[in-house]
Amino acid sequence: MITVLKNGATEEQKNKLIKWFEQQGLKVHVSEGEYQTILGLVGDTTQIDDELVGSLEIVDAIKRVSEPYKRANRKFHPEDTVVDVNGVRIGGGNFAIIAGPCSVESEEQILEVAEGVKAAGASMLRGGAFKPRTSPYDFQGMRAEGIELLEEAKAKTGMPLVSEIMNANHLHLFENIDVIQIGARNMQNFELLKAVGKTDKTVLLKRGLANTLKELLMSAEYIMSEGNENVILCERGIRTFETFTRNTLDLSAVPALKELSHLPVVVDPSHATGIARMVEPMAMAAAAAGADGLMIEVHNKPEEALCDGKQSLTPAQFAKLAERVRKIREAMN
Amino acid sequence: MITVLKNGATEEQKNKLIKWFEQQGLKVHVSEGEYQTILGLVGDTTQIDDELVGSLEIVDAIKRVSEPYKRANRKFHPEDTVVDVNGVRIGGGNFAIIAGPCSVESEEQILEVAEGVKAAGASMLRGGAFKPRTSPYDFQGMRAEGIELLEEAKAKTGMPLVSEIMNANHLHLFENIDVIQIGARNMQNFELLKAVGKTDKTVLLKRGLANTLKELLMSAEYIMSEGNENVILCERGIRTFETFTRNTLDLSAVPALKELSHLPVVVDPSHATGIARMVEPMAMAAAAAGADGLMIEVHNKPEEALCDGKQSLTPAQFAKLAERVRKIREAMN
Amino acid sequence: MITVLKNGATEEQKNKLIKWFEQQGLKVHVSEGEYQTILGLVGDTTQIDDELVGSLEIVDAIKRVSEPYKRANRKFHPEDTVVDVNGVRIGGGNFAIIAGPCSVESEEQILEVAEGVKAAGASMLRGGAFKPRTSPYDFQGMRAEGIELLEEAKAKTGMPLVSEIMNANHLHLFENIDVIQIGARNMQNFELLKAVGKTDKTVLLKRGLANTLKELLMSAEYIMSEGNENVILCERGIRTFETFTRNTLDLSAVPALKELSHLPVVVDPSHATGIARMVEPMAMAAAAAGADGLMIEVHNKPEEALCDGKQSLTPAQFAKLAERVRKIREAMN
Amino acid sequence: MITVLKNGATEEQKNKLIKWFEQQGLKVHVSEGEYQTILGLVGDTTQIDDELVGSLEIVDAIKRVSEPYKRANRKFHPEDTVVDVNGVRIGGGNFAIIAGPCSVESEEQILEVAEGVKAAGASMLRGGAFKPRTSPYDFQGMRAEGIELLEEAKAKTGMPLVSEIMNANHLHLFENIDVIQIGARNMQNFELLKAVGKTDKTVLLKRGLANTLKELLMSAEYIMSEGNENVILCERGIRTFETFTRNTLDLSAVPALKELSHLPVVVDPSHATGIARMVEPMAMAAAAAGADGLMIEVHNKPEEALCDGKQSLTPAQFAKLAERVRKIREAMN
Repeated sequence: MITVLKNGATEEQKNKLIKWFEQQGLKVHVSEGEYQTILGLVGDTTQIDDELVGSLEIVDAIKRVSEPYKRANRKFHPEDTVVDVNGVRIGGGNFAIIAGPCSVESEEQILEVAEGVKAAGASMLRGGAFKPRTSPYDFQGMRAEGIELLEEAKAKTGMPLVSEIMNANHLHLFENIDVIQIGARNMQNFELLKAVGKTDKTVLLKRGLANTLKELLMSAEYIMSEGNENVILCERGIRTFETFTRNTLDLSAVPALKELSHLPVVVDPSHATGIARMVEPMAMAAAAAGADGLMIEVHNKPEEALCDGKQSLTPAQFAKLAERVRKIREAMN
Repeated sequence: MITVLKNGATEEQKNKLIKWFEQQGLKVHVSEGEYQTILGLVGDTTQIDDELVGSLEIVDAIKRVSEPYKRANRKFHPEDTVVDVNGVRIGGGNFAIIAGPCSVESEEQILEVAEGVKAAGASMLRGGAFKPRTSPYDFQGMRAEGIELLEEAKAKTGMPLVSEIMNANHLHLFENIDVIQIGARNMQNFELLKAVGKTDKTVLLKRGLANTLKELLMSAEYIMSEGNENVILCERGIRTFETFTRNTLDLSAVPALKELSHLPVVVDPSHATGIARMVEPMAMAAAAAGADGLMIEVHNKPEEALCDGKQSLTPAQFAKLAERVRKIREAMN
Repeated sequence: MITVLKNGATEEQKNKLIKWFEQQGLKVHVSEGEYQTILGLVGDTTQIDDELVGSLEIVDAIKRVSEPYKRANRKFHPEDTVVDVNGVRIGGGNFAIIAGPCSVESEEQILEVAEGVKAAGASMLRGGAFKPRTSPYDFQGMRAEGIELLEEAKAKTGMPLVSEIMNANHLHLFENIDVIQIGARNMQNFELLKAVGKTDKTVLLKRGLANTLKELLMSAEYIMSEGNENVILCERGIRTFETFTRNTLDLSAVPALKELSHLPVVVDPSHATGIARMVEPMAMAAAAAGADGLMIEVHNKPEEALCDGKQSLTPAQFAKLAERVRKIREAMN
Repeated sequence: MITVLKNGATEEQKNKLIKWFEQQGLKVHVSEGEYQTILGLVGDTTQIDDELVGSLEIVDAIKRVSEPYKRANRKFHPEDTVVDVNGVRIGGGNFAIIAGPCSVESEEQILEVAEGVKAAGASMLRGGAFKPRTSPYDFQGMRAEGIELLEEAKAKTGMPLVSEIMNANHLHLFENIDVIQIGARNMQNFELLKAVGKTDKTVLLKRGLANTLKELLMSAEYIMSEGNENVILCERGIRTFETFTRNTLDLSAVPALKELSHLPVVVDPSHATGIARMVEPMAMAAAAAGADGLMIEVHNKPEEALCDGKQSLTPAQFAKLAERVRKIREAMN
């Protein structure tokens, strides 16, 4: 970390700041140039608050040589992390497709979809039991009952389960859920991040609608700094001025995150586009961009789905997508 | 609510949909036009899920005559809501300034600032005890100890307290806090909204960085639908491509929210701009746009603040701002 | 086009509006429903100004059944347009790669790059002679001299040329340029669009930084309505809050534009990301999303480029990209 | 300007770069620190291309001490510029309201509006003769005939005229237009900027929908670097995700631009909001934020306007706005 001081800084001010850095356990190397004094900070600077230091009167600029995230940072962990979810591996060359309905709606629905997507090549089953909805009057999910139906689908198909949590107090219900999803709206719900960071469950962390890649990695760091290193990052579209698609899928996030971090990156083209017929091309594009996996909404009767039906594929459409994605993956090697 | 059917809809499909609407307790008036069949829905349509209906195969478009928010809606509550916080009134012509530091840092700091802003005309004291920070390694607030220091400042100055909550499990600590703030990152933390909706505390709800005005009102509706109607809305800047200011303060939100809702609207120019010298002009602009109040960051030693020092005013700068805002308010009547 | 009237509209107002529509050459079918009166407009409604009609006091809503673009619209032209540029075909299954430096800088540079990219599989040569630069003090291109150097490269390699125009008065210089590029900043320079629409040159129209897909198609319509139907659309990134990449490449635009329009769609990952090492993955993703071509910046000495060096590939890097894209294309069929 | 070199830069590379800077007429001071070598550049660095230098292999970062705009920069011109338009002064404490219809539509219309707004306190008359429209099929303005009608209104009322130019070839028609407007879509039409920079007309430069404040100032610099220093900047809303208003009016731009530049800043709340009833509150807010003037759309029959009728005020509404803004201005002094 480098701190550039303003020209007018007095010796007394400089010494006060240097002393403060030393109290934080850092070594400070002073480099007096003709134009500016630069303090080189060596040690664990992740605990230094950029904004605080940057706002000091004598500081002109502050520049991190190392990013403020450490456990999520590829610099300190050059090899890809491979997350193992009950035998399904993701990352480091392992590609996994998570598929299933937006919401669990009934026993018949979840079993039919689970069997359909398994046959078509999905390796994990997703299904929402607790649903974050913009309106308090919209369907909020089957809650505990939905979790039970997912467990039944797991028992029948053997597929690991992915489901979203909205409240740390519900954690006891997620005992048999293999991957806990943190939704886009909760990406900076720091209390929830800390809570799942204290478990040993794999966490699928979705990027917030208006969050930068750096912020996504800082949120992963919240989970990891509590001891849980099983984090999968998920790009699912950001909010822009364009209204043709629900959100704008930022596929550049895939190579960018793979460069900045060692964590696996999956892409959710269903929520990003909100349009069923765009899911296949964007899934193929995500695979070609280097994603480690996909998250695809599949419903046995998309036109009757209780939420997000517009963006769901049928099992047959999903099977075609999975096949085309497989071919793209082959072409890449 | 009006549902426009597609041209090719069969009688059977139409009847099935009509029956479903009736099961939701609505009266359905069918209007067969030359081009399109329109279903007029009468009754409490707030419980109808737009996305669900809109995704049905036979539905061309769905149009709400009434917005999906009811309790926050000015149509059903034409007079301004006046929120009374321990004798301090806001809304309906009552203007209130909330001032104080971003974070509570020490007894000396909070008492000095509290007395300074009270003397300058602030009517409520703000101070963060629980701080949402992007990095897990940044200062997270004094937590319970910070709440105690706020209580001490209240005891000395008589000013009502405003402080942010991040976890419903902390509610017991907020007994003496008069206004519970929901921060921008938690605007769609629906579980937290429901929890504060079950209390009788006034809630100050900040707009999320990437949330529309309609979404802000839907989040207010989450609180109000649990029974708590004491909600103050807060515009604090949205995320755009412009980087000169930290965020882009959307002052159009003030007249827009006042038109759509009866709830009081305050503006936080400190977080929106992130630059101390821009706080005064934007505070004046907010007052001129018709805001019911302001939320201003004040620190006794801005250059030493543990967070957000760059945007804090000194008590003296705040006193000048309060005086200029007072003159703007006079000019408006 | 359907115009929905407000409930309170008087007979006199209705008749006045109907008469006005008829004066525009449209047939008006009146459909009186129980809730609303709907005017169905038949004829060439592209000339009806939505905003004008929508702002009339008695109009509740206006809804186009047909989009306001006609010549660019796939509905009226279901087969893909194949643009033929001096024997290089693009669209309708024909994939073309346009490669070359951001700016023409010297004879040696353009010839070396031209030969390099030709050998690696590029089918057209790009090179800027007139450069739109944010600052008046930055390098503005070699102008007429740059065009001459491009012509020389064409003579040596046989590759068709793509170059940007900024001023209709320069058209005479573009006689030997095969594809005239309209840059993102000029996407709504309507006078320039009309001017190139009067030529018979192929036009490559780049999406503006803050323009919707519909606006891009309306700008294509400006060109086509002057008689020039040889238009290639280009996605090159939009401006969002994310700062890691220069812009955010919106690959959803590819399937969206292919659905809305019959025109070929190419993607420029170099300008979108601004980072050389992200060009290959995003080029592959663009191909997998269904793009008809790519536009790639290549420089013989990227570190010495007079503009945009950061995003340029070397000819060797480009050769690898072209090979990997070829494999993706094969996997798609 | 400071150039920070990477650690591994060789002596040969350093010397080559230093020599190149010297060839650009700059003095180079080398400052070897323990961590980094810094080159301090003294002289006219506005001609140095940041991107070019930043992309060199040995350069780690480049930091301007002075901004790349010079003539528009307050640092080199500390006093406010006062633009004098035929006796109407704007800037440096002088406040001016420009009012009139979006488009000139008829003699009766422009004369009636001109007299109405003059009586209500407007000091300049605006009216579009050449209209940039998204669709080639929408009304494009009365063109030369519209200019003649504006001249007639000027003859009758004495008010200076403001009108938009879209093509440098039309400049001869603007002889009697006092202020030439460059619209948002043409803010980076650099050829047009240079053309108006060669005239001695006052130029009103609107901020582009997706342009930063720095880019706006660079565009002003394009005009000024050609010799024309009579530039008025105009904030008119930027494009964001919010759809309630047409665009998002960024009033922070007012104090920001006043700090960065000496040029007058006006605000156009009509185009920004697109909603007539929001124009007055946002006009008042703009005045309170410190704007030097306003640009307001007024139409004698807003419901019949050929474009943008939704956002036009009647002359009576405008008179009320002008009176309320006058009171805000008084309260500020």
